[in-house]
Formats: sequence, structure tokens, C-alpha cells
Amino acid sequence: MTIQTPLSDIRFDPDADGAGFDPALIAVEVARLLKEKQEDTIKAFVQNQELADVAALIEELDEGDDLAVMEMLPQHDQAELLGYLRPSAQIEIATRVSRRKLVALMTAMSHDERADLFKQLDEVAQEAILPALSKAEREDLRRLAAYEEWTVGSVMTSDYATLKPEMSSSAAIDALRMQAIEAETIYYAYIIDDERKLIGVISLRDLLTARPRQKVSELMDTEPVWVRADEEQEEAARVIARYDLLAVPVLDNNDRLVGIVTADDAMDVTEEETTEDFYKGAMVQPLEISVSEATIAMLYRARIFWLVLLVFGNIFSGAGIAYFEDTIAAHLSLLFFLPLLIASGGNAGTQSATLMVRALATGDVRVSDFGRLMTREIVIALALGLTMAVAVSLIGVWRGGTEIALVVALAMVSIVIMGALIGMSLPFIFSRFDRDPAAASGPLVTSIADVLGVLIYFTIAAQLLGL
Amino acid sequence: MTIQTPLSDIRFDPDADGAGFDPALIAVEVARLLKEKQEDTIKAFVQNQELADVAALIEELDEGDDLAVMEMLPQHDQAELLGYLRPSAQIEIATRVSRRKLVALMTAMSHDERADLFKQLDEVAQEAILPALSKAEREDLRRLAAYEEWTVGSVMTSDYATLKPEMSSSAAIDALRMQAIEAETIYYAYIIDDERKLIGVISLRDLLTARPRQKVSELMDTEPVWVRADEEQEEAARVIARYDLLAVPVLDNNDRLVGIVTADDAMDVTEEETTEDFYKGAMVQPLEISVSEATIAMLYRARIFWLVLLVFGNIFSGAGIAYFEDTIAAHLSLLFFLPLLIASGGNAGTQSATLMVRALATGDVRVSDFGRLMTREIVIALALGLTMAVAVSLIGVWRGGTEIALVVALAMVSIVIMGALIGMSLPFIFSRFDRDPAAASGPLVTSIADVLGVLIYFTIAAQLLGL
Repeated sequence: MTIQTPLSDIRFDPDADGAGFDPALIAVEVARLLKEKQEDTIKAFVQNQELADVAALIEELDEGDDLAVMEMLPQHDQAELLGYLRPSAQIEIATRVSRRKLVALMTAMSHDERADLFKQLDEVAQEAILPALSKAEREDLRRLAAYEEWTVGSVMTSDYATLKPEMSSSAAIDALRMQAIEAETIYYAYIIDDERKLIGVISLRDLLTARPRQKVSELMDTEPVWVRADEEQEEAARVIARYDLLAVPVLDNNDRLVGIVTADDAMDVTEEETTEDFYKGAMVQPLEISVSEATIAMLYRARIFWLVLLVFGNIFSGAGIAYFEDTIAAHLSLLFFLPLLIASGGNAGTQSATLMVRALATGDVRVSDFGRLMTREIVIALALGLTMAVAVSLIGVWRGGTEIALVVALAMVSIVIMGALIGMSLPFIFSRFDRDPAAASGPLVTSIADVLGVLIYFTIAAQLLGL
Repeated sequence: MTIQTPLSDIRFDPDADGAGFDPALIAVEVARLLKEKQEDTIKAFVQNQELADVAALIEELDEGDDLAVMEMLPQHDQAELLGYLRPSAQIEIATRVSRRKLVALMTAMSHDERADLFKQLDEVAQEAILPALSKAEREDLRRLAAYEEWTVGSVMTSDYATLKPEMSSSAAIDALRMQAIEAETIYYAYIIDDERKLIGVISLRDLLTARPRQKVSELMDTEPVWVRADEEQEEAARVIARYDLLAVPVLDNNDRLVGIVTADDAMDVTEEETTEDFYKGAMVQPLEISVSEATIAMLYRARIFWLVLLVFGNIFSGAGIAYFEDTIAAHLSLLFFLPLLIASGGNAGTQSATLMVRALATGDVRVSDFGRLMTREIVIALALGLTMAVAVSLIGVWRGGTEIALVVALAMVSIVIMGALIGMSLPFIFSRFDRDPAAASGPLVTSIADVLGVLIYFTIAAQLLGL
């Protein structure tokens, strides 16, 4: 795409990298058109794009240009667009628009997104906005913003649709039509009693296919699936995925309906949690913002703790080697096999740990399956170890003769089994003690397997070589 | 929960491990009730549960009992239930029911799920079923089953709702009401021309809030987001997540509408792809079925290839050590620091690789960001290396004196920077050559960092200790 391309020629291209178009390229073009006062061309373009793509474009524009382009959208779209921006871009725009404008945008935003934005504003900005909101909105904002970051409450929204049990299905459809402007979804409606206790859920599909006179109370699901506001947010995502829902109702500890979590927000939660699991697997502590936005100091802090801790862990491997200095001095050729033997234990262990961490995370395996899986793992590890022993004993004969080959082959079988059993057990041990199994990372398993690998190898060598 | 608990007392419990109840415990109770001919108690129980939970229960029941419980559900629920079963349980039940029953179930199943089941049946069973289906169903089944496993086509379904552009919104709602029994979703409807080319998409929400006389053609989105049937299935999941959709239309290469992918199926695709990325990160090749169901042979095959390959990779580390045998023989105390130095390079590299693999997978970082990120990584790696050098030089002074401490500190800084740069670059290099960045796994990075770590360490030692 060259700068000459008129914007009107740009169509959604699913093959483009992430966005429907390359936002950086389009941003150059848009900046040029803004300078040339060709607002109408840009306006026609952005109004025709998906808001997620316009958000990506706005993030690429310079200060001033971004607001100019945002203003080209209808007010309601501007509010929705804000929700698609990265947190840092969102806050940047929020601090640059007038207070009046910000209040208008926040009034139109979905309740969960405006609570997220509100939480990020500094106290001065928060205090400036609150008086301009209606009492109900103020209370809603405060309530949603009060939930801790990791809870279901922090990802739920309070703009759900409600119905009364005595309504006929046709009256219910009319009621949903009225709530459609405000509600996050009207495809599920929630039936609550006078105390806001959840007594049923009904889908718009069921309402549409019912006879017009049928009552909501006859049609609704009276034992719907739900989650608690103070549970971990993953639970909402897990329930939505398991039961193939579009949204799940959220109850407080008095069984009152306080919000819903929608499927799209559940997907975001899953992505966030998966990223955290990947990080744990590499001994990186969770980052509050995305990698591309993180500062050097943030990344340093997220990484240094475990790196230094593992250094001290590896001292034991060094001590193990030092303990066998005499054996090594007598057979320096043993050193040749040291890296491949201890690495093999770590590699086999990393495989086992990763298979188990993931299976526990997806619910494929439960903690109670440990015994059965452990038996199977021993057989697999034996097969893996024997195969690798054959490979390594060939090298052993070539490098050091049959005696060394025997030592190396025996060490390989033992080390691979040891590594696999450690990798297999750690996630279950963590889980048993209410820790996240994902903490059983490759580097941790490798460090433990390294120490034991050194001891196994040189003990076998010292025995067989008669030292 | 004890065996004495009457089934009627069991309620959905979101705190239960995965399911709304523990299926293994309930299965014992259900088996007992079946033996005592108390079918009504079981029937009342299962009809009140979510189908996903009943599926989990049926998987735990013995042959015979499972079919007896399944038969307690209405025919339509039985068909939906089949879709919730694990593939192996699904096929087992399909082969045990009569041909007549199987045809009835498959007719009622959603189109994508029945195609998945059909693909798993052996040829004899496939040939037995096809003649009993209507011509349209037979063709639909063949078409859906023909897509390759990794494509959008393999996860899409063909039971979507369609509307004509000239319909009024109220006529459109009536049309959707009629299609509600068959269609996977009626919350989005697709508008196609005579050649089945997609000309627009409309949501039920937009139809409900429109004036009754407004035409579908005026209301519909004429430039909807779509994906191609022969693209990778992740693309559909990515588009649904990016644009917060409930479903995305799928076009063939002639722009004809051939199906839709729904958000719940997109979640399954994401889970599957994430699992594959985790496996790649541990050098485990993709498994076709879940870990808990995989046989020993399957797991052996998925793991042995990379383990053996890495053994040969580690020979270079061994060769590096062997090359410096004289240096080592002269200063055996150097060996003490070998494990912690080379492990640190691998650990820092694993961190960098994981951060980049995940950022590339979520779209947070693009290949074009490489230069900027690399500069940042060098600064971070330098800071990490210096911190670790301080830690290790203290041990150095204690174990081997100031000279050794200096060697070890210098080696640590160099090795950490080297490891981080390798870990950082590999995902981008793989991506550049159209390989999956996730192949830049911890074990691979560690193996490369090990070889270079050995060379760096002993080269510095040989220089500074004057050998």
C-alpha cells in the first residue's frame, strides 16, 4: 500500500497482520489527509470500518490527530471505541478531552469498560467526574470499581437485561426492545425477585419461539448456572466455555444478581490467564501491562527474582561436581557427557511438567488422577530413557570405550526417569498445596533435575569405574 | 458427598472441580439407583442438569448404564448431549446404538458436530448411515467432513440463519422465529444473493430495535467481517475475539457463504491452539487427543524425537568442555561454576523467548517491532547480567578467590546477554521464515545457550587465568 492509495479503496483484509488493515500505514495517509483538510475522505473511511480497527488506527496517530479522527464518529461509537483502545491510550485520551466530553463518553460507555477506565484515572480526575454523573451511575461506578483486579466482579458488567416472571413472552420481547439501547446483551434476560435474587434466566430465542401468551415464569430456566462476584475471574471464563454460554450471571454472597460476564470478556480473561501461565512456565512474574508497552524497569523486575534464585539453586549442581572432583580428575572424558546427560533430565522433565500443567488448566486431568498418570509416566519415561541410552551409548563407545558407554547409558536411563517423575509430580504437589500448578516451570524442573543428574551420573561412574 | 445423598439434593456447585458436581461420585450413585430400578429419581435428576454435566456423568458410567441414562433425556437433548462427549466416548456410543437411532440422533445434531462424528466413524458405519439421510443432509455432511482438520471449514457449521434483503424487519423477525429450531444461532442473520454471495449481516438486536417497516437492506451491515473456509482455524477465533462477535461468516473462494463459526467453537479452537503452543514450548509434538486419553505409545512418539535431537545438540556442549580439558584440569574449581553459568544463559533466554512467543501469538507485538524490542532487550539483559554477576562473584570470591570471581562475573554478564539475545531473536527468525514462533522453545534456546555458554566461560577463563 502506497501513500497514493485513496482511503476509499481500502477494504477489510483478513490476511492483514492482526487488523483489517495495517494501522501504521493508514495512519501516515490519514495524517497527510488531515494536513490537506480532506476531513470528508477520512470520515467516510472510518465510519465504514470496524471500531476495533479504528482504535488500532487512532493508537498510531499523533496527539491531536487522534482526537480529530475520533470526533468524526457518532458519539455512541466514540464511547464504544474507547473500550477498544489499549489502557494507556485510553487514559491518554481521557486526560486530554474536556471534562464535559469525558462525562458524556463515560455515560455512553458500557458499565464494565467505564469502571475500568475510572479506576485508571488519578484521584483529581475521578473527583471531577463523579459529581457530573447521575446518582445511580455514580453508585454503579463505585461498586464495579471496588472489586479486586483478579475477581469475577472486576470483569462483570451491570448493564444486563431483566424481566418479570409474570410477563407474557410477547410483553417480554417488547421489554427487551426497550432495554436494547442500554443493555450489554438482550439475548439473555435475567428474572429477579423483589430482593434482586436471581430466580431464572431466559434466552431471547426461547421467548421468540414461545407462544405469545406463555409466561416468562413457565419458560425460564429456574436453575441456571451462575458464578460468585468474589471468585477468581477464570471461573467465569471456565463456566462460559464449559456450558457454551453467551453470558453468565454473577451473584453476591446473598444470592443477589449484581452483574453478568459476557463471552467476549471471558475470552479476554482466558487470554490474560493463558499469558500468565506462559510467563510462569518461563519464570517471568506477571506484568500488569502488555510486553510491548512495558518499561525496561518493569521487565527487569519481572525477570530478575527467579533468575537470581535459580543461580543459587544451581550452586548445588556445582557443589555436586566439586564433590566428585577426584572421579572427574581421573576420568576427564566423563565431562564430555555431562551436558547432554543433565540436559536430558531437564528436557524430559519439562515435557512432563508442561503436559500436566496444561491438562490441569484445561480440566482434562484432575488431581485425583495422579496415581493412574504416574504409573503411565513411569512406563513412558523408561521407554524414552532406553531409547536415549542407546543413542548415547554409541557416542560413549566412540568417545570413551565400552566402560564409559555403560556408565553413560545407565546414567541416561536413570536421569530421564528421574527428570520425568519430578516434572510429573511438581504440578500436582503445587496443586495439592493450593498453589498454581503452572509454577512447575521448565527452568525450575531443570534446576532440580540438574542437581540430581550430577549426583546420579558421578555416583554411577564412581561405582562402575571402581573409584 | 456420600452414597446416601439423594440425587435430588445435588445442586449446581460452581466450586466443584470442573463440573457442576463430581461426575465420578454421582456415577456410583446412579449405577446403584439403576440396579434398584429407581429410574424416576435419575430421570428427574438428569433432566434438571446442564447437558455438559450429564455428558461428564455418562462418560463415567459403565457400558449399558450410559445408554440407559441417555435415553432418559428428550431426543433433541440426546443429540446435543452427544456433542458434549469426548470424541472417544461419542464414537463408543455411536457404535453401540442401532442404526435407526444413530440416524435420528445425527439428524438432530448441529451440522458441525455431526460432521465431526461422521468423520470418526469407520467406512462401514459411514456407508450404512448415508442412505438413511435426506439428500441435502448427505451433501451437507460430505461437504463439511471434506475440510482438512486445521481449516476454518473444519470448525464451521452450515446451519446458519438467512434473510432476504427486501424483507421488512418484522417479517425478518418472523423468518428467524421459523429458523430457530434448526439454526445454530438466530442472533446474527446472513443476507445472501441468488448466487449465495454474502451481501450483508444483521443482528437480531438491530432488527428488534428497528421500525417494523424498515427493510433489512437498509439496516444490514454491508461490509461485514468474514473469513475464508480454507484459512487456518485460528483466524476465525482471532477475528471473533478482535471484533467481539458471536459468530463470523465463512466464505469460499468465490465469495459464497458456506458456513459460520460461532464464538463457543472459537473458544475451543483457541484452547486447542494454546495447548499446541504450550507443547511446542516444551518440545512435545501435537497430540491428536487429550493427554488423559492418550496411549503410552502416542505420548512416547510425541516426546522422543526432540529429546534425542537435543541429545545430539548437547554433544557440542560436551565437545566444548572437552576442548578446554587442559584449562579445566589446571583449575578444577572452575567446574563448580559451570552449571550455574550455563543454566543462567538458558533461563534468561527462555524468559525472552516466552515473552516474545506469547506477544506474537496475541498480536501484541509484530515482526516489524523487532528492532525496537531488540534495543530494549539489550539494556534489560545487561541489567539482569550485572545483577547476577554481583551475586555470583560473591560466591566466586568464597570458592576460588578474586581471580576466579572476576572470570565468573565477566562470564555471567556475557552469557546472560547472549542467552537473552538468542531467546529474543529465535521467535522472530522462525516467524520470518514462515514457521511458528512457538517453536522457539525453552529447551531449544537452552541447548543453544549451553553450547555458547561453555565456550564463553572457558574462553574468558583461559584468557584471564593465562593458559
